[in-house]
Amino acid sequence: MNHYIGLVHHPIVDKRGTTVTTSVTNLDIHDIARSARTFGFEGYFIITPVVKQHELVQTILDHWNTDHGNQYNPDRKDALSFIRLADSIEIAKEKIKEKEGLEPIVVVTGANSQEFNGTTQELRNKLQVDKRPMLLLFGTGWGLHASVTNSADFKLEPLFGAAKDGYNHLSVRSAVAIYCDRLRRSL
Amino acid sequence: MNHYIGLVHHPIVDKRGTTVTTSVTNLDIHDIARSARTFGFEGYFIITPVVKQHELVQTILDHWNTDHGNQYNPDRKDALSFIRLADSIEIAKEKIKEKEGLEPIVVVTGANSQEFNGTTQELRNKLQVDKRPMLLLFGTGWGLHASVTNSADFKLEPLFGAAKDGYNHLSVRSAVAIYCDRLRRSL
Repeated sequence: MNHYIGLVHHPIVDKRGTTVTTSVTNLDIHDIARSARTFGFEGYFIITPVVKQHELVQTILDHWNTDHGNQYNPDRKDALSFIRLADSIEIAKEKIKEKEGLEPIVVVTGANSQEFNGTTQELRNKLQVDKRPMLLLFGTGWGLHASVTNSADFKLEPLFGAAKDGYNHLSVRSAVAIYCDRLRRSL
Repeated sequence: MNHYIGLVHHPIVDKRGTTVTTSVTNLDIHDIARSARTFGFEGYFIITPVVKQHELVQTILDHWNTDHGNQYNPDRKDALSFIRLADSIEIAKEKIKEKEGLEPIVVVTGANSQEFNGTTQELRNKLQVDKRPMLLLFGTGWGLHASVTNSADFKLEPLFGAAKDGYNHLSVRSAVAIYCDRLRRSL
């Protein structure tokens, strides 16, 4: 079964809880694509409604594909087909359904969630039983808007740190890598 | 027992195996500091012999500490003391010994290693038996020079991916996050 990662730039909340749209960054495209590919995901959706951001991503991908100065670039291999753009989570879901013939299970992550449905192991069990593709969503900024987490099929356990003072502020790139590793060891 | 992460910029190898010095990047400082702090490490050494790079890092840290526009910035809290600069691995080791009163165990990681000493679980056992601080080193560029890996006390298992085509190119930021998570669940 094929699974997908989605990096959401809208709807996101800022630190006051206001709904915002965040910007796509070069390193989010780069690092998360590498993590997703390394851990066997079928594709990586960059989800933003902003047209200019789609153009930015396309420019970066085109650069990777014509980067003659760098004969071996781990980003180049099939980057164009692996990384996909979508205006919204709904559109990402439709694209997965077109490709796989099945409605994806939407899984959310987030350090903010007070309640969650299960661990990565339990998610794996669910995926094996349901036999559907997964769209694993990550938020940027201060996290996914409640409308996204509330309607998700599965809320994955947050990542618990080990700092004596409770410091727990992983970057989204780091969080993606950790969940990929935990899931791989389950999938 | 306190443990430390070190990001090595020299001696590093490039794709031809030539010894090089890589540049420090803003996001390596940022992401890895956050991962290290979240997972309970005592400090994070940025290891480079280049004076101008020390100045660059210092500028970035000063900016975090005077960033009035951003009232809550997870990077600010104690960034200056948590992130340390060192000209070399030897100097990082000396600084740890000064602080902890004990010689650190040097642990290396790297996708290139053909042979390794053990898993994260085995490393944990060793740390509990030896009761010494760990300096966990990560390479940049194409990896740590053999002189570093050969003299290390422990070579940690590489991260195995799950891509059907064997693609296995995690960014160093992602690799740090994964090892931190695996070790935390052992430490």
